Amino acid sequence: MILGAIQHSATGQDCICLEPGRFLVRLRTARGDLTRVVLHTQDKYLPLSIQDTREAIPMTLSLSDNTLDYWEAELSFDVVCLRYWFALTDAGGQTVYYANYRFSDVPFTDTDDMFDCPQNLREEERFLTPRWAENKVVYQVFPSRFASSQAVPEELWYKAPMSFRDDLHGDLRGLIDHLPHLEELGVDVLYMTPVFRSNSCHKYDTIDYYTVDPAFGTKEDLKELVEKAHGMGLRVILDGVFNHTSPEFFAFADIREKGPKSKYLDWYFIREFPLRAARGEKPNFKTFSYFGGMPKLNLKNPEVAQYILDVALYWLRETGADGWRLDVGDEVSHRFWKRFRQAVKAEFPQALIVGEVWHYAPDFLQGDEWDTVMNYPFYQSVLALAARGEIPVSRFVGDLNFLKGNLHPRVYPLLWNLAGSHDTPRLLHQCGGSKARMKLAAALQLLLPGMPMLYYGDEFAMQGSQDPDCRRGMLWDPKRQDAGMFQWYKSLIRVRKTCPGILARESTDTADDERGLLLRRAGGFTLVFHCEDGTLPLEDFAGRRDLISGDVFKGTLEPFGVLVFED
Amino acid sequence: MILGAIQHSATGQDCICLEPGRFLVRLRTARGDLTRVVLHTQDKYLPLSIQDTREAIPMTLSLSDNTLDYWEAELSFDVVCLRYWFALTDAGGQTVYYANYRFSDVPFTDTDDMFDCPQNLREEERFLTPRWAENKVVYQVFPSRFASSQAVPEELWYKAPMSFRDDLHGDLRGLIDHLPHLEELGVDVLYMTPVFRSNSCHKYDTIDYYTVDPAFGTKEDLKELVEKAHGMGLRVILDGVFNHTSPEFFAFADIREKGPKSKYLDWYFIREFPLRAARGEKPNFKTFSYFGGMPKLNLKNPEVAQYILDVALYWLRETGADGWRLDVGDEVSHRFWKRFRQAVKAEFPQALIVGEVWHYAPDFLQGDEWDTVMNYPFYQSVLALAARGEIPVSRFVGDLNFLKGNLHPRVYPLLWNLAGSHDTPRLLHQCGGSKARMKLAAALQLLLPGMPMLYYGDEFAMQGSQDPDCRRGMLWDPKRQDAGMFQWYKSLIRVRKTCPGILARESTDTADDERGLLLRRAGGFTLVFHCEDGTLPLEDFAGRRDLISGDVFKGTLEPFGVLVFED
Repeated sequence: MILGAIQHSATGQDCICLEPGRFLVRLRTARGDLTRVVLHTQDKYLPLSIQDTREAIPMTLSLSDNTLDYWEAELSFDVVCLRYWFALTDAGGQTVYYANYRFSDVPFTDTDDMFDCPQNLREEERFLTPRWAENKVVYQVFPSRFASSQAVPEELWYKAPMSFRDDLHGDLRGLIDHLPHLEELGVDVLYMTPVFRSNSCHKYDTIDYYTVDPAFGTKEDLKELVEKAHGMGLRVILDGVFNHTSPEFFAFADIREKGPKSKYLDWYFIREFPLRAARGEKPNFKTFSYFGGMPKLNLKNPEVAQYILDVALYWLRETGADGWRLDVGDEVSHRFWKRFRQAVKAEFPQALIVGEVWHYAPDFLQGDEWDTVMNYPFYQSVLALAARGEIPVSRFVGDLNFLKGNLHPRVYPLLWNLAGSHDTPRLLHQCGGSKARMKLAAALQLLLPGMPMLYYGDEFAMQGSQDPDCRRGMLWDPKRQDAGMFQWYKSLIRVRKTCPGILARESTDTADDERGLLLRRAGGFTLVFHCEDGTLPLEDFAGRRDLISGDVFKGTLEPFGVLVFED
Repeated sequence: MILGAIQHSATGQDCICLEPGRFLVRLRTARGDLTRVVLHTQDKYLPLSIQDTREAIPMTLSLSDNTLDYWEAELSFDVVCLRYWFALTDAGGQTVYYANYRFSDVPFTDTDDMFDCPQNLREEERFLTPRWAENKVVYQVFPSRFASSQAVPEELWYKAPMSFRDDLHGDLRGLIDHLPHLEELGVDVLYMTPVFRSNSCHKYDTIDYYTVDPAFGTKEDLKELVEKAHGMGLRVILDGVFNHTSPEFFAFADIREKGPKSKYLDWYFIREFPLRAARGEKPNFKTFSYFGGMPKLNLKNPEVAQYILDVALYWLRETGADGWRLDVGDEVSHRFWKRFRQAVKAEFPQALIVGEVWHYAPDFLQGDEWDTVMNYPFYQSVLALAARGEIPVSRFVGDLNFLKGNLHPRVYPLLWNLAGSHDTPRLLHQCGGSKARMKLAAALQLLLPGMPMLYYGDEFAMQGSQDPDCRRGMLWDPKRQDAGMFQWYKSLIRVRKTCPGILARESTDTADDERGLLLRRAGGFTLVFHCEDGTLPLEDFAGRRDLISGDVFKGTLEPFGVLVFED
């Protein structure tokens, strides 16, 4: 038995309150190493002489990632304190006992030290997430490039932008006018990159957090946008850029003007005067990246923290928006995000808090900071499998199961599964121009649990390499749109909505690396993802109706073909 | 290579800011599996074309626990964001690359996804602990049984208490009068179990948090105690019982009187009226254990939380005490302890916060709740090795290294290493009456890093089984004292203080299971712990002076003998 791989943390990692009285306990072991795990539980405070509260609960091998098996048991209890230990058995029949991070050759008795009532096995440590958002489809819009209410010349609108100053004149009115497109596509959530006053087209350098950028419109436009979106059943997520500001933000402007005498000196991290931030040198004040155009706010300063909390609450109150996506979330302190969650959730318990972070970062997802993240680990895996064919199917399943097995079960259906964003080359570009690969990637986004995040225009197979090229004007000209791709996205979303069983937490995901096949059985459906080029005979399903195309399957899978069957 | 055992969390677990600009990165692998680990780092935001910031830092195999090796690297940097990955090599020469919780057969390049600037590699996530407390010796006193200023009849004082109501008339004046005993013993910190108003002798059921129990004395006595202790260089830690109260506490008394109409209804967890808490049934309100005499406070109620925070601050302000030990700490929510730390540390940054928890509970030790814990895992290991001879020496070393390898390096020297408390049978009882075993246990407490916590009277080899028997009157009668044991404790503390090198973080701990020998080399000293019965020849050290006894070592170790040599 590989003892070094046996992992159970008596914290929120593996001790989870799902609902009052209902709990999840998890344990990880080396992949394929164990055949049976039994969780033994006991009330800490009732001696056996008064009541025998001992229970032996077989754990389920719920899933495996690339190196580990994940064992889970759900239990119901109403005790002051739960004590527990594990009995672990391998294929050779050897059994080892594990409690309190220690191994024993003999079972524990009721007087031994065991895992002792972790605080996280308590109702008040529950992770309360906005359940409306589970498995919903997000559509990301870059407002300056999405739709304009003005008559913009075609040669401007459709040229590839060259810099972050290029303004294609997209605005909120244009977005409002094009909401029916989102409705037709079938998405559930509109996420807009920032809309507050800024001199850049991306507006990630805010000059005034309380003003909608005049180029985009007015506060009334924003309110109307949210109202109309809500009227269509669409939720709206705003983009909060709270790590840094524009140098023209009033506090930094004051520092630039008054130097060390500015009363806003402690709003930033100024190392020395005069301020220096020439291109090619490191600024002498903290910034996002080393870019002097984005000085970093000092959120340790309670005055600054309060200012930003007020901003966050102001826009939720004023517009009725449904949450915040938090830019560069992992460069802001845990302490601030804890305050942020408390302030936001106290008034808007259903607001969704989505952090931007590019690595797997469970520390922000413990129940007291964010609800979810932009799921860049998914992005990396889906591109490696579908766009570049670099990894076998089993690796993709393992990557996803790592997230599923380690994250809180309420978080997994909230993960923003993206295949591209305003910060990456577009999906089609990543696929080397292969629309077949792109369709597979889209299907992996849209037919699996989580919150698929679609980047505007991908549904028309838009082109675009790295930023700023990935931020071209949306293809509103029907001649420029790929109608087949649009149909594909629409069909996937339709299947997702009409067959909610495909998103069940319980599923059997079979990776057939030899044939490049991912077979997923969930909720009364079978999903087939063909992750390789070339055709593949698949007689088993011949004659059955594929729910995506509506056609009867003839028994041969297309290159990168995807099918959904009802069982 | 055992990939399933390779563990690195891009959180505060393994990414630690030690000082501004200085960081610790850790990684765990299966014990004995790897021969070399290299940490590769790079500034996230500077492209190689501008500056090549790549570094390759060999990691040190710092220690091993029972199943894992712990690799560490300290690094200095001043970058906005650090990206990093690991190169792992095993004995067969195979190298695997690891980043972002994923493995690769080829090294990562600067454009690959890597572990990306975890928030915890930032100065503001630093764990700020009271460094005065590192490695200090704690002496626990149970005031009602420690010393009385009254003339208590011998037959009362020295009888074994039968219940928690038995009052031996110990008081603060008696404790003040006996402070010279603590000075003579050489301890650094006095920790008293609760002293606030209560009808029990243990006072873990508070009636009035703002009054010193009249049987113990007055607030002036408490102030005088702290002042006199400080005058002797002793710090004082108070015991905070904030999980529950006495039923006579004003808020619960009001509920008992007024029932559902009480305005304090939400101060507790009342399920129904009339209140029921007869012996042998579960109370119909939440309690500590199932004991109706200790109703559980609702610290989710902001009014209650504020009340308790006020109490905590009041006594630190009024008495100058140096911190709080938190009773039943793991049954109180993380959210409350976060508030507690913020409130206490804002005014008393040097106050020590010590939680009571019986299992390894890293979630309370992330830097934003407690500074340290009563180290019951140490208690379990030291008893298993020294008192009961149940585990080999290597297991003991592995158990300690588990704590050292996983906890924050600032926490390890703060762990309250106990070998008994008011809640356990006394050490001598655990040793089956063997004073030789007891001396070994005391040496393992007092010659290793951490904060050894001595339970009053153990220094005189006091008898006592499970509570209440472990709470007998202190042996002030010299005829009842074991002078040899007292000399042993004093000598160990003297060696600890005069040879601080023995407590160095860097050490070589060699476990020789065959001979039952633990050899520790640290800071210019060699410590020898003989963990078995019988004598053992140890020629290597013959002729050298043992610093504990002051005698020249003759070459034969006594049963359970302990020696300290200067190298």
